[in-house]
Amino acid sequence: MSTAARQRTPATEALRAIQGPVRERLELVVHEMHRIVSSELPMIEQVSAHLLRMRGKMFRPTLTLLSSSVDGDPDPRGIRLAAVVELMHLATLVHDDSVDHSVLRRGLPTVNSLFSHQVSVIMGDFLYTRAHAALVEVGDLEFLRILTGVANELTIGEMRQLGAVEGLEFSEDDYFALIRSKTAVLLSAACETGALCGATRYRSALARYGELLGMAFQIADDILDYTSESAVTGKPSGLDLREHKVTLPLILARPHLPAASRARVEELFATEAPDDQLISDVVAIVAEAGGIEKAHQQGERFAQQAEEALDPLPDSPVRSALTDAISYVLDRRS
Amino acid sequence: MSTAARQRTPATEALRAIQGPVRERLELVVHEMHRIVSSELPMIEQVSAHLLRMRGKMFRPTLTLLSSSVDGDPDPRGIRLAAVVELMHLATLVHDDSVDHSVLRRGLPTVNSLFSHQVSVIMGDFLYTRAHAALVEVGDLEFLRILTGVANELTIGEMRQLGAVEGLEFSEDDYFALIRSKTAVLLSAACETGALCGATRYRSALARYGELLGMAFQIADDILDYTSESAVTGKPSGLDLREHKVTLPLILARPHLPAASRARVEELFATEAPDDQLISDVVAIVAEAGGIEKAHQQGERFAQQAEEALDPLPDSPVRSALTDAISYVLDRRS
Repeated sequence: MSTAARQRTPATEALRAIQGPVRERLELVVHEMHRIVSSELPMIEQVSAHLLRMRGKMFRPTLTLLSSSVDGDPDPRGIRLAAVVELMHLATLVHDDSVDHSVLRRGLPTVNSLFSHQVSVIMGDFLYTRAHAALVEVGDLEFLRILTGVANELTIGEMRQLGAVEGLEFSEDDYFALIRSKTAVLLSAACETGALCGATRYRSALARYGELLGMAFQIADDILDYTSESAVTGKPSGLDLREHKVTLPLILARPHLPAASRARVEELFATEAPDDQLISDVVAIVAEAGGIEKAHQQGERFAQQAEEALDPLPDSPVRSALTDAISYVLDRRS
Repeated sequence: MSTAARQRTPATEALRAIQGPVRERLELVVHEMHRIVSSELPMIEQVSAHLLRMRGKMFRPTLTLLSSSVDGDPDPRGIRLAAVVELMHLATLVHDDSVDHSVLRRGLPTVNSLFSHQVSVIMGDFLYTRAHAALVEVGDLEFLRILTGVANELTIGEMRQLGAVEGLEFSEDDYFALIRSKTAVLLSAACETGALCGATRYRSALARYGELLGMAFQIADDILDYTSESAVTGKPSGLDLREHKVTLPLILARPHLPAASRARVEELFATEAPDDQLISDVVAIVAEAGGIEKAHQQGERFAQQAEEALDPLPDSPVRSALTDAISYVLDRRS
């Protein structure tokens, strides 16, 4: 399948296969999300409808439902938990887009661009608090401990992200702390809360799997910025570089840069609005210094550890789906 | 005391008297707030320190502590609850200022103006989720039910506020729904959660008192916009009118406006950036039509009901302080 064709498909075939064991329950999660955010206020209904249309691949709810099914019959609370996890994710996307002044998300206008900056700040708060209220209704403090901690960690991740901008001294450890906070903790919680809905004895294994999967997920995402061709220019988008965000490929390339390349990289970070040529040069510099390859290897290491984390689980189609989710994360193109 | 002198005093003498019975515990609340928001991330520490410096009158924590003390010995959890309530309030102020692009709050620069819009969105989320995590640690679902519901209602209030802009058909009922959502529910929760920390049998009385107090509080606040003299111009600030926000004085004046006055009001709402003369004319029109006086009367009605809500409580210095809080709310100048 060509890259372009993959990008047009909302859920790749690989993802559809992973979702196979929980397909019907995923539909229930979508209904539950609608129920949780329903409001009598027309403005809120309008924004919610837009957001639920832009709903993504439902990757996190898939992890919750799969995790809840690894040990036989899942607990029906898994539907609610999966919906809460996805709504928390959606709330962070709405605030991220507002913070970044993004215009498009998943091919649809962002809330800040379609409505206003005001509406996006308020709507992010609405989604988060409504999801949290649905969680309180479940009446189990353990879920609240996990997901409230994660919600706070996500905000710390956002704050770390600000530090990853303009910071050429941003280290590998800083980067791992960042992606753990902004991505891995939520994937870990998606799996851990799932485990608490029917597979309690695999709780720590699944929490660890989710965290490592999340690390691999974010590294793959950051590599894509250096490798995936933009539909418009046919060149790597380099959006992170454009915004002066330092990610793993650059960090791993840095010690190996000849003086001239280093100077060009420094030029990019000293330029407020770097042009396409500068971006494209730095992408090439990072690739030549082996930064992309080394980042791939690091992603593979996390993937390998994620697979090992699944060792205690019994063999089943659900376990296979969780294993396939690792390759999906590494291979995805969008 | 002159208006200017009052505005320079962070807590008026009246408020100091109200806080008398809980003064020492209020200090503990301040320590608890610092503890809850502490972070190893320097950026978060820096913003938190600024926010805790701009800390207001601690009116909501005062209500929580007083409520916890109406029936004898208060439960020590009241300190935590009071801190959580104030941090939730602070989180909403940070997002409000971000949404409104406000520059000053309580005489200090807002987070969005001192740091950035990004930092203010993230920091509001940080404060809210950290406060919530502290609440989860308390381990009592009833507090979570009350305060998660309130947190969501506050976002609905913010959304209603957007509808109160440019909406000359905004009705008295719309206004009451707005101020209940944006103000009264949190004051009610401050009192109700306080009651649950030592005065459970007065829970519903105190919840009702807090809600009615909150209604009176917001009406008084909205009247101030028509009456309090700006330190700079010596005229009413009319900030709400400047932003096309419709509040009670205008709503109650509307049915009594002669055609020429009505036209002038409509002109204001049709003008993107109304000048001082137009603002000042509309303030005078609303005053002449009795809008301010009628709004005062409505505030007094809520105040009267708030006082009646205290009827079941035993006589004590704490009850007197709660009664005095009603006059304080009606009389305050800033």
